[in-house]
Amino acid sequence: MNFLSELEKRSGKVNAALDELLPAAGEYPPIIHEAMRYSLFAGGKRLRPVLALASAEITGGSTEDIMPAACALELIHTYSLVHDDLPAMDNDDLRRGMPTCHRKFGEAMAILAGDALLTAAFELITRCPLRGRITPERMIRVVAEVASAAGTAGLIGGQVVDVISAADRIDGETLAYIHRNKTGAMYRVSVRTGAILSGAGEEDLERLTGYADHLGMAFQITDDILDITGDDQLMGKPSGSDLKNNKATYPALYGMDEARKMAALEADMAVRCLESFGPEADFLRELVWFVIRRSH
Amino acid sequence: MNFLSELEKRSGKVNAALDELLPAAGEYPPIIHEAMRYSLFAGGKRLRPVLALASAEITGGSTEDIMPAACALELIHTYSLVHDDLPAMDNDDLRRGMPTCHRKFGEAMAILAGDALLTAAFELITRCPLRGRITPERMIRVVAEVASAAGTAGLIGGQVVDVISAADRIDGETLAYIHRNKTGAMYRVSVRTGAILSGAGEEDLERLTGYADHLGMAFQITDDILDITGDDQLMGKPSGSDLKNNKATYPALYGMDEARKMAALEADMAVRCLESFGPEADFLRELVWFVIRRSH
Repeated sequence: MNFLSELEKRSGKVNAALDELLPAAGEYPPIIHEAMRYSLFAGGKRLRPVLALASAEITGGSTEDIMPAACALELIHTYSLVHDDLPAMDNDDLRRGMPTCHRKFGEAMAILAGDALLTAAFELITRCPLRGRITPERMIRVVAEVASAAGTAGLIGGQVVDVISAADRIDGETLAYIHRNKTGAMYRVSVRTGAILSGAGEEDLERLTGYADHLGMAFQITDDILDITGDDQLMGKPSGSDLKNNKATYPALYGMDEARKMAALEADMAVRCLESFGPEADFLRELVWFVIRRSH
Repeated sequence: MNFLSELEKRSGKVNAALDELLPAAGEYPPIIHEAMRYSLFAGGKRLRPVLALASAEITGGSTEDIMPAACALELIHTYSLVHDDLPAMDNDDLRRGMPTCHRKFGEAMAILAGDALLTAAFELITRCPLRGRITPERMIRVVAEVASAAGTAGLIGGQVVDVISAADRIDGETLAYIHRNKTGAMYRVSVRTGAILSGAGEEDLERLTGYADHLGMAFQITDDILDITGDDQLMGKPSGSDLKNNKATYPALYGMDEARKMAALEADMAVRCLESFGPEADFLRELVWFVIRRSH
């Protein structure tokens, strides 16, 4: 498998679906739909939808039917970036080399665009067709799990602790909490969304959940490493911006060598969670090494 | 019926349910749950949940079983107030005589508290027990309708046009759009939530929808009138604040007498939508006059 072209193919399908499922830019009132689309189509690997689709695939579901729910995960990810970038939060002017949403559309519209992306996510989940393995009960479970992962026991909780800890030196436990929730919870619910809608058994669900948890940690540690060693192009934000913002990172807390070892260990554990799956899980395996390789 | 004591009884039940359904203030990370609860319990008549419960009641549903969905509507209302008050939006320091969320907890936490209330709303809907008339299909329909009413075709759309129109003189059509969406969409989906979960037929659903649309207009016009004539206590915000913010209002556009007539007409039409219901709809009828009487 040529992993990169496979990833590109899959994220291309997600982009096409997002374009189809979101209100057109001209729909009234146009400015909010422009702002939503501006941030949504500013780039990105679509990792969360891709994880959901791959999970559906290896548990016997229809990637086509779960696509709206997969797209919902990207909407939530984008909303969190738009709000994180706001002056009251990280106050970032650029993301992926382009003006952030509030720099382009103003602060009020960026707040509303984030709100609208989050709201639209829940509407999208309900647009999965109720056929094949997608039962109403499974759809409700996905709404509940996505809301929980995006809420104060997940994404928002992680962001809250990140915000209130920004100026302090924080310990390893707090750092792990931030990443387990700010990044990890959405990775976890992404694989679970694909698997639940596909009627996966609880054992497969557990395996995929373990995979996502370790993948999320590997990704986050690697992100911290890249913030120091990487170039701006690869990161989509100025390298050193975590240092600028005095943020706690794995290299800062454990040293660069140890952080690299931790990332490799998490990657290894992620792959091991997939042991009971056959070659149909190769894409998810390769994805782990893709995430890690970025740091070397 | 003593309407006021009946309203108080019902909103008291909603308050008790909100307290039970929301994460405790001490739950980690505590500051976000404190901020959510601060804004949620700052007062308010709980009109949206009360509308949902009353709709369930007159269409044969269980008010107890739909309570989590009714509470979800109040969470969405509160989130919209928290974000509307932000410096980038209306920049209000006080709401109901108390510091607004961002004045009390800082801007970052107010943005996150709003996000968290919106997210928790969708989780709450899924916590209605699947028994009696509440089927999974009806629950999914409610998730879809609430997301749509809260999104850019409803609440957010109205707020967007309100924000971008604030500095201009706007026409009657635009003003009607703002209110139909900013306030009206959530009233409408409130009665629909109660009726759909109770398995109401499409005809009753239409009647209740018409009721809510006219009630919402009556409420909004009255609100505009009170902003000029009312006292701060009754309004929960400084009177004249719409004028201060150069906002379009019904009295500004049509004159005070005409605005009063319009409110009375909307109230009349709201009550007429309930003609086919018996005395079980008396509470909803009285509610209309309660809304109108505030302006006299």
